[in-house]
Amino acid sequence: MFLANTMTEFILNTNDFESILVNKAQGSWIWDVKGKKYLDCTSGVWCLLIGHNHPKLIKTIKSQIDNLIHTNNRFLSPITLEAAERVLNFIPGNFDKITFLNSGSEAVEFSINLAKKITGRVDVLSLKDSYYGSYGTSKSLSYTSGKESKMKLQYRKCNSEECNCIEDLIPILDELLLAESIQPACFVLEPIMVSGGIHKPCKKYVEEVCNRIKNAGGLIISNEVTTGLGRSGKPFGFQHYNITPDIIVLGKGLGAGYPVSAIITRSELASKIPAEQKYYAQSHQLDPLGSAIANTVVRIIEEDEIIERSQEIISILEEFFGNLRHPSIKEIRQYGMIIGIQIQPYSSKNSSQLILEIKNRLLEEGIMIGLSLGKDLLRLLPPLNMSVEEVDFLKRKLTKVFDNLSP
Amino acid sequence: MFLANTMTEFILNTNDFESILVNKAQGSWIWDVKGKKYLDCTSGVWCLLIGHNHPKLIKTIKSQIDNLIHTNNRFLSPITLEAAERVLNFIPGNFDKITFLNSGSEAVEFSINLAKKITGRVDVLSLKDSYYGSYGTSKSLSYTSGKESKMKLQYRKCNSEECNCIEDLIPILDELLLAESIQPACFVLEPIMVSGGIHKPCKKYVEEVCNRIKNAGGLIISNEVTTGLGRSGKPFGFQHYNITPDIIVLGKGLGAGYPVSAIITRSELASKIPAEQKYYAQSHQLDPLGSAIANTVVRIIEEDEIIERSQEIISILEEFFGNLRHPSIKEIRQYGMIIGIQIQPYSSKNSSQLILEIKNRLLEEGIMIGLSLGKDLLRLLPPLNMSVEEVDFLKRKLTKVFDNLSP
Repeated sequence: MFLANTMTEFILNTNDFESILVNKAQGSWIWDVKGKKYLDCTSGVWCLLIGHNHPKLIKTIKSQIDNLIHTNNRFLSPITLEAAERVLNFIPGNFDKITFLNSGSEAVEFSINLAKKITGRVDVLSLKDSYYGSYGTSKSLSYTSGKESKMKLQYRKCNSEECNCIEDLIPILDELLLAESIQPACFVLEPIMVSGGIHKPCKKYVEEVCNRIKNAGGLIISNEVTTGLGRSGKPFGFQHYNITPDIIVLGKGLGAGYPVSAIITRSELASKIPAEQKYYAQSHQLDPLGSAIANTVVRIIEEDEIIERSQEIISILEEFFGNLRHPSIKEIRQYGMIIGIQIQPYSSKNSSQLILEIKNRLLEEGIMIGLSLGKDLLRLLPPLNMSVEEVDFLKRKLTKVFDNLSP
Repeated sequence: MFLANTMTEFILNTNDFESILVNKAQGSWIWDVKGKKYLDCTSGVWCLLIGHNHPKLIKTIKSQIDNLIHTNNRFLSPITLEAAERVLNFIPGNFDKITFLNSGSEAVEFSINLAKKITGRVDVLSLKDSYYGSYGTSKSLSYTSGKESKMKLQYRKCNSEECNCIEDLIPILDELLLAESIQPACFVLEPIMVSGGIHKPCKKYVEEVCNRIKNAGGLIISNEVTTGLGRSGKPFGFQHYNITPDIIVLGKGLGAGYPVSAIITRSELASKIPAEQKYYAQSHQLDPLGSAIANTVVRIIEEDEIIERSQEIISILEEFFGNLRHPSIKEIRQYGMIIGIQIQPYSSKNSSQLILEIKNRLLEEGIMIGLSLGKDLLRLLPPLNMSVEEVDFLKRKLTKVFDNLSP
């Protein structure tokens, strides 16, 4: 019946597709249709903190779909209330209001609108290199918009006590807030810029920006779509800083492959919004299946001690990447289970050629990794619960591929 | 463990939640936690063309999640290619390119960007009262944006051959295109405005607008998120008009409760986009689970002859609603399985009071329907495969509730 001449004959080419077709996965591994298996060091699209097809999650999905997948958004389900309470309990601080949507982009968009409604203001600030989403305000705030804006604050990647970024950069923010009378609705922070190149902004600068924004009456939104639930080595990315967000956005890992995101805030803030302005319409908000999945993912993270156990794997990887040397490697940046290998020209090859060669050789060796040609970056975001044996496999293959890079 | 004091203690109140908690569904029916069952005449959020938990769909989901839920967006899965071909085969006309995303809003947003890239233009036209999404351009085009714009064209609901809307309204469009030199990237059509009040724009006017836009070099996008796959009595909403869209957007019914949407176009158009502009990032685009679900939903619609068989139910409902009279009913509008009961003040009660009373009485009688207080509307979008017995139940209960409306 199906007669496509080429694999992607009918697929709009929104990506550079590999020629490998995949059809099975378990834990950290994914199989192609020929039966070859690959260590999935991208966690899908960074979503699989608990790996592919966790048995407890599969059990939840099978049971939930026998009962209830989807309802009208006027009708709640007990599993949605349970998920709400479980996710809120998991988050440090006094957060007591949550809603569930589908995508991370959408949840960032919603959180910014929430901040605007709570403060009655429209100005939104962020840091350069951040990524928030594929459309709307989320996109305009992101480095992918391709547009410069003074609302995208400069930052430094220094992270040393001696850094003078406070002296250099805070006056620029003060200028915005005072001289230009910018009235911030919110400052949206991506605690570690993952899509934008794997950068961590200077701790004391982020803290000072948050102070300034709060003093000016704005809210702090932490975009934890990628960093949330343990990805960065701590339960939440904002915990790398001494800050208290007002709104937290979760996505990706919360669904472990199913599209569910969440917006979390405090009732004292939510209560400032007039009732008629709270309304939001989306086909799958608060859906029983998405709720059941979010509930089980957080339960798995707790019961399996996913974040605690990942510390050993993170340490092994830190030791390995701290010692990995090759003339094609300019720098390696690691924040928990977020790893970027910055590539530089080597021998006769430019960075893009090297990145594609390394990616392809690793695929041959049974390793899937991510890449950004625009950022000269190889990117690894493996499942948090990968085993020591799987890390050994990864280390061996990476060493082999770099050792054998043809000049 | 879970101790919420009130049902929605931890839920951000984005909707007017009912006090009923639901936890089970099958076919056209949904059960609350007390065991009472309701005929779901909202199809969830208009998503369940094939009803809740169709056995073939449940079987597909259980089998797919044992294999593969989610992958990196550089790796395709055979089930995604199968779904692509099946959905394309189902659509009349020579469409041969598709991609899958999550939400309808997102897919409309993507389709508009596609049109802009294909045409190299930025102007987007639509009709008043349309609905496209909750954020970004989709929202700004929608009646929910609350903003008037000359790009939201006036239209009439006349639908008679004698209507003079061509003479009255087309000159306004010509003025835009010629005198104001608007260069349309696209005209986005919601074939029947469902959220905006259940209105069908005049056939000959829509056809003339499409002609004008095409002649001016713009594309026609049909937003079939709600009307697609049989909801309006025809397979696609655009088939109510003698027009050929360039891009079709599907959502809602395609996933039968799972968040999957699709954008469909032709390769001759897609090939006009420079490769580097095609890139799109979303966590769940082309995911195996969403693809498997879309594939099975379309297979069910074909195998179970869902659209063909719904014609009998539509006729029964047309006869019933054509004869339903009550002083509180101003007008009933039905387009296939999209039904709106326009309420007007009656006795001492205003429309909102009546709508809430009717909705509550129907709930007591075991019927869930939709409502829009802003539009003075009761809304019914039942599953397409509801049975004659279920329609009889609905007719009996509606008659009883209207007969017993207290003055």
